[in-house]
Amino acid sequence: MPTPAPNLYPEFNIIRLSHVVFGVTDLAKSRHFYVDTLGLQVTDEDDQRIYLRAMEERGHHCMVLEKSAEANVQALSFKVFDESELDKAYAWFEQQGKPVEWVERPYQGRTLRTVDCFDTPIEFYYQMERLAPIHQQYALYRGVKPLRIDHFNLFSTSVDDAVAFYNSMGFRVTEYTEDEESGKLWAAWMHRKGGVHDIAFTNGEGPRLHHTAFWVPTPLNIIDLCDLMATTGYVSNIERGPGRHGISNAFFLYILDPDGHRIEIYCSDYQTVDPDLEPIKWDLKDPQRQTLWGAPAPRSWFEHGSLFKGVETKASQLKATPIIAP
Amino acid sequence: MPTPAPNLYPEFNIIRLSHVVFGVTDLAKSRHFYVDTLGLQVTDEDDQRIYLRAMEERGHHCMVLEKSAEANVQALSFKVFDESELDKAYAWFEQQGKPVEWVERPYQGRTLRTVDCFDTPIEFYYQMERLAPIHQQYALYRGVKPLRIDHFNLFSTSVDDAVAFYNSMGFRVTEYTEDEESGKLWAAWMHRKGGVHDIAFTNGEGPRLHHTAFWVPTPLNIIDLCDLMATTGYVSNIERGPGRHGISNAFFLYILDPDGHRIEIYCSDYQTVDPDLEPIKWDLKDPQRQTLWGAPAPRSWFEHGSLFKGVETKASQLKATPIIAP
Amino acid sequence: MPTPAPNLYPEFNIIRLSHVVFGVTDLAKSRHFYVDTLGLQVTDEDDQRIYLRAMEERGHHCMVLEKSAEANVQALSFKVFDESELDKAYAWFEQQGKPVEWVERPYQGRTLRTVDCFDTPIEFYYQMERLAPIHQQYALYRGVKPLRIDHFNLFSTSVDDAVAFYNSMGFRVTEYTEDEESGKLWAAWMHRKGGVHDIAFTNGEGPRLHHTAFWVPTPLNIIDLCDLMATTGYVSNIERGPGRHGISNAFFLYILDPDGHRIEIYCSDYQTVDPDLEPIKWDLKDPQRQTLWGAPAPRSWFEHGSLFKGVETKASQLKATPIIAP
Amino acid sequence: MPTPAPNLYPEFNIIRLSHVVFGVTDLAKSRHFYVDTLGLQVTDEDDQRIYLRAMEERGHHCMVLEKSAEANVQALSFKVFDESELDKAYAWFEQQGKPVEWVERPYQGRTLRTVDCFDTPIEFYYQMERLAPIHQQYALYRGVKPLRIDHFNLFSTSVDDAVAFYNSMGFRVTEYTEDEESGKLWAAWMHRKGGVHDIAFTNGEGPRLHHTAFWVPTPLNIIDLCDLMATTGYVSNIERGPGRHGISNAFFLYILDPDGHRIEIYCSDYQTVDPDLEPIKWDLKDPQRQTLWGAPAPRSWFEHGSLFKGVETKASQLKATPIIAP
Repeated sequence: MPTPAPNLYPEFNIIRLSHVVFGVTDLAKSRHFYVDTLGLQVTDEDDQRIYLRAMEERGHHCMVLEKSAEANVQALSFKVFDESELDKAYAWFEQQGKPVEWVERPYQGRTLRTVDCFDTPIEFYYQMERLAPIHQQYALYRGVKPLRIDHFNLFSTSVDDAVAFYNSMGFRVTEYTEDEESGKLWAAWMHRKGGVHDIAFTNGEGPRLHHTAFWVPTPLNIIDLCDLMATTGYVSNIERGPGRHGISNAFFLYILDPDGHRIEIYCSDYQTVDPDLEPIKWDLKDPQRQTLWGAPAPRSWFEHGSLFKGVETKASQLKATPIIAP
Repeated sequence: MPTPAPNLYPEFNIIRLSHVVFGVTDLAKSRHFYVDTLGLQVTDEDDQRIYLRAMEERGHHCMVLEKSAEANVQALSFKVFDESELDKAYAWFEQQGKPVEWVERPYQGRTLRTVDCFDTPIEFYYQMERLAPIHQQYALYRGVKPLRIDHFNLFSTSVDDAVAFYNSMGFRVTEYTEDEESGKLWAAWMHRKGGVHDIAFTNGEGPRLHHTAFWVPTPLNIIDLCDLMATTGYVSNIERGPGRHGISNAFFLYILDPDGHRIEIYCSDYQTVDPDLEPIKWDLKDPQRQTLWGAPAPRSWFEHGSLFKGVETKASQLKATPIIAP
Repeated sequence: MPTPAPNLYPEFNIIRLSHVVFGVTDLAKSRHFYVDTLGLQVTDEDDQRIYLRAMEERGHHCMVLEKSAEANVQALSFKVFDESELDKAYAWFEQQGKPVEWVERPYQGRTLRTVDCFDTPIEFYYQMERLAPIHQQYALYRGVKPLRIDHFNLFSTSVDDAVAFYNSMGFRVTEYTEDEESGKLWAAWMHRKGGVHDIAFTNGEGPRLHHTAFWVPTPLNIIDLCDLMATTGYVSNIERGPGRHGISNAFFLYILDPDGHRIEIYCSDYQTVDPDLEPIKWDLKDPQRQTLWGAPAPRSWFEHGSLFKGVETKASQLKATPIIAP
Repeated sequence: MPTPAPNLYPEFNIIRLSHVVFGVTDLAKSRHFYVDTLGLQVTDEDDQRIYLRAMEERGHHCMVLEKSAEANVQALSFKVFDESELDKAYAWFEQQGKPVEWVERPYQGRTLRTVDCFDTPIEFYYQMERLAPIHQQYALYRGVKPLRIDHFNLFSTSVDDAVAFYNSMGFRVTEYTEDEESGKLWAAWMHRKGGVHDIAFTNGEGPRLHHTAFWVPTPLNIIDLCDLMATTGYVSNIERGPGRHGISNAFFLYILDPDGHRIEIYCSDYQTVDPDLEPIKWDLKDPQRQTLWGAPAPRSWFEHGSLFKGVETKASQLKATPIIAP
C-alpha cells in the first residue's frame, strides 16, 4: 500500500480528542486510582459519576467515570471547531449511513452521538463549560502531574478501513506499520491537534479500546508514579514500561485501572502541524518500532482491551498479533 | 480595552513560524555558539551562510546565519498551509498597501516578502525542502538538545496595533498584559500552531527583535546548557535565568549569541488549540507575570534588542518599560 | 597560607553533623514552612517543640523547632562514633578550656554541650532513637523531597581560626578561598561524612549561622519547590537561585523560613572519602567560585545570618564581604 | 541467622572500592563502549591497556581494560587509609593463610595482591597518582555522565562466609536477604565508604563477578544512555531495566560490554555512615526486594557472570537462584 495521503480539506473540522467515558464498577476505587494516585482533578461528582480534568485543561472534563455493572467504555469524544462544523459532522455521518442523534451531556453544548466504521460509539460537541486555569496552582499537582489527555488507541479489525474512515474526518497519519506480506496496514497513528496522534489503530479483535493516554512533563514524573504505585498497593497495575517506543518516540508507561482500563502515561512526542509532514513507515518485523529500548511487552499488553458498551467485537482480518518473545 | 477576540476565520492560513535569518559578523564564532554549544544541526553551509535545523524538524532550516558587516535580522519567516494560501497572503498584503514581492530563497518554494504594520520584514512560503527525520539519532544530540524553533518576541511601538494586524492573519492571543492606566495593551502572546505563541509583542522602541526561542525537552537540559556555557567561555552570554515566567508558564533561560542576538531556551508551555481558549490577562503591576520566581531580569533584558536590516526604529507610544527593581 | 593539611588522626571521631535547634516565634508558621512546603516529616511535637526528620534518615531528628520569644539558633549538633569517643570529646574540650556539661536531650543518649573557638554552642551525642525507614514510602514524599540534612554554614570572624579548631576535631578541608592580599583564608568547606562539607565558614561578623542545608535528589525537585513556593505565598522567601556554585559544584537554592533562618536546598556535590583528597583553592577575585552561573546573589545573602542564643557577635578581622555587584 | 552485626573496629582500614581490571578481547570495541558510549575518560592508553576514570574521580583509574585472549576479571582493587593500614592488611591476610605478595601496578604505590575466602583475586594500595579535577569541565561530559565507580557485586558459594570474611575487614552490612527455610543468607550488601555498598554478594556458582556499578547524577542520564545505546548498535547490550530495586532503593540499568562484562548504571541510594545503622532485612519470597517496580529480570541476569582469571568456580551450597517468572 502506498503511504497514506492526508486529506487536507476534510468535510468538517475536528480540533482534538476531548474525553472518554468509562463504565467503572466501583467509583471509590476508581477515584483512588485516578485522583489520589494519578493526580487528575475532580471537577464534579455525585454517586453516579466523577468528572475529571488534567492540570492544563480548561474544559470541564477529559474523563468521566460512570458507575456501571460492568467495566466498559461508553464513548470516545471529540471537540469540533464551532457549531457549524458540528452540523456538518451530523450531515456527513448521516450521509455515511451511520445512526446519528443529538444527546444531552452535562457541561457540554449540543452533542452528536454516532459510530465510526466499526460501530465504535463516538461523540462530537463544540462547546464545553470552561473552567479557570489551574496550571499554576502548583499545590494541586499530585501523582504523575498529568497535564492533558493525549490520545486514544484502539484495536481494529481493519486498520486500512480505520485510516480511510478517519482520513475522511481529516485525521492525518504520522506513523504507520505495514505488513509487507499482505500489503495491508498493521497499525496507524493519526492526529488532528498537532502531536503524533489523537487516535491510533492496531490490528486485532475490535473494536476495543487499547488505552487512553495522558501527557506529562518529563520522564521523571513517570518514575515518580512507578515509585508511588509500587509502594501503595498498585505494583501489579503497572503493566509495561517505562521504556521508549520507536513509533512516536514516546517515553511511556502502561498501567491498568481497577477495572482493567489501560492508561498510558506519555511524554516527548513531536510537533506535526506541517500539512506536508511525511508519515514515518515502520516494518512489522522491526522490534524497535514497538520498543526502541526496554523490556518486551507482556502478553496481556497485546491481548487485553476494554469493550465498548453494547458493541460486539469481531476477529481481525489479519493473523494474530506478532508477539515479540521475551 | 476588552479581551482581544480571536479572528477564527482569517483571510489566509498560516501554519506556524518557520525561521529567522540573522546577519552575523563572524560565521565561525556563530557556528561555535549555535552548533557546538546549543546543538543545532548544520544542513548546509558555505562561506556566506549556515543553514540550521533543530532535532525534530523536517524542514531544511529554522535559522539562517548570513555573513554581514553588521549584526541584524533580515527576516522573520512563516509557513502557510498550501500554495493557494500563499496567493491569498499576497493579495491581502497588497490590499493593505504593503510592498509585496516574490523572492528566491534556497531550499524554499515560492516566497513572498513583505512587511508588517511596523515595517518588520516578514516572509511567507508553503514549501521547503524536507529532510529525513533525525529525532531518533540520539548520537547527534548535543548542548541543550534543541527540538524546534518555538517563537519570536518583538519590541513594538504599539501592541494594540500589533495585535490588530496579526489578528487579521489569524494569530490568536493566549495571554496579555494591560496597562490599567492607559487602557492600552502592554504586551501580547499570539499563536498559530497550538502553543502559547508563535509571536509575541512587548511595548518599546521598535520594531526590534527581542528574542527567538527554542523548545527543549526538560528543565534539566537548560541546566546542562548553563553548566556548559559557564565552563567554555560563555558565562557572560547567559543574560537571565533560569526561572519561570508567570505568563506562558515557561521555564526559561535567555542567552546572547556572539552578535548580541538573544535566544530563549524554553520548555513547558501548554496546548492552546481550542478556538474558545480564554486569553489570560495579567496586571502590569504584578511582578509575577514576568517572573513567577527567579532573580529579577537585568536592565539589558528590558533594553536591548536586535535591529532589522534597513528598518528605522521609533519610540514607543507608552512610557518607559517598567523595570522591576532588584 | 599553605593548603590546609588534614588532620587524619584526630583526638575523637565525629561521624557527621546531626541536627540544628532553631528558636522560632510561631510554631504553626514554621510547621507550614518545613512540613507542608519543604516536606520534612514530623517525628514528635507538642506546643513547645516540633521534631523533624528528612526522608532517608533513621535518627529521630535533624531539626528541632522550639517556641521562642526571639528567632535564634540554640545549638549545632554532631554525632560521634561511640560512647568512648564522646568521653574523649569531653576531655578534649575541657582541655581546651571550654565549658563542658552533660545535658538532657529528648530522644538522645548522653549529650555533651560545649562551645567552639567562637563560643558557638555545639553539642555531641553518640546515640539517638532510631526510627523505621521511610525512604520507600513514596506516598509520604512532598515539597522538595528532602533526603537528609547536609551541612551548616557559618559567618566567622577568623576562618583561619575556624579551620585550625575544626581541623583538630578531624574535619578536613575540601575547598577554600584565600584572600591573596592578606594571605588569610576567606572561606573554607570542611567534612567528616564524605561529601564536600558538614560545616563551612565564611569571613564576617560572627558567630552567626548563614544557613543549614538539605540534600535533595535532583535539580528538578528544586524547580518544583520554586513553583510551589511562588504560588503559595512564599515567593519573597526565595532569596537566591537556583544556580550552581563553583565551590562544591552544588546546584543550589536559598530560601528563608518565617523567622529568617536561611535554608539551602542542594544537590550534586561529590565524594570526598579519600584521605589524600586535595583541597581545591579558589581565588577571592574569581566570581565563578561563588556563582558558576546564575544571577548575582542579593545583598541580603551576604549580610544576613541567624544569631546564636545568648552569644554576642564580633566584627570580622578582614574587610567587608566583597559583593559581586549586579 | 541473627542480623549481621557490624565489626566497628576492624584490623585495618579500607576506605572504599577503587577499581576493576577487566581482560577484554578487543581493546577498540571496549573503548567504543566505555569511552564513546558510557562517557568514561581515558587517562592513559597503549596497545595493551586503557586506563579510565569517571568524572568526579581524582585517582588515576577506576577501570583498567587489558588486552586478553579471553574475557575475564583480573582483580578487584581497594584503597586503604594509609601505608600502615596496608602493612596491617598484609599481616592479616598472611595470618589467614592467604597468599600475599607485593606487586607493581602503574600509577599506584605499593600494592598488595591476595585473595578472599573464595580465592577471588583482590588488591590493596594506599596511593595512586592524583589527577586534576575535571568535574566542572562540562564539555567533557558524554554518554551517561558517569561520576564515580560505586560497587562490585559477586556470585558467592556461601554468602554467610562472604559476610563473615568481609566483616573482618570492616565492611558493614546495610541490607540482606535471608532464606527463611535454611536460615542462611541469600544475599548481602556491604559498605565502607558510606553508601549502600562497596561490595555485594549473591548466592550462586562462584566466585564470579556479577557486575561493576557506576554512579550517575539522575535517572534522566540513564534514559539518555538507553536512547543512545538503542540507536548506535547497542540495543541488545541493554540487559535489564531501567527500574528500581527494593534493596538499596537504586534506580538501575544493567548493560553488557562487548565481552559480556556486566555494568550497572545506578543512582539514588542513601547515606550509611552511622555506625548504628540497622541493616534492612528482606524476605527471599518478596519479589519487590529485587524489583520494586519494572519488568522481571531476564534469565541471563540470574545466570551470567564474569570469571576471574585462573580461578575455578564451585557450585553454591544453596539451591538454584529463584527466578521470578515473567
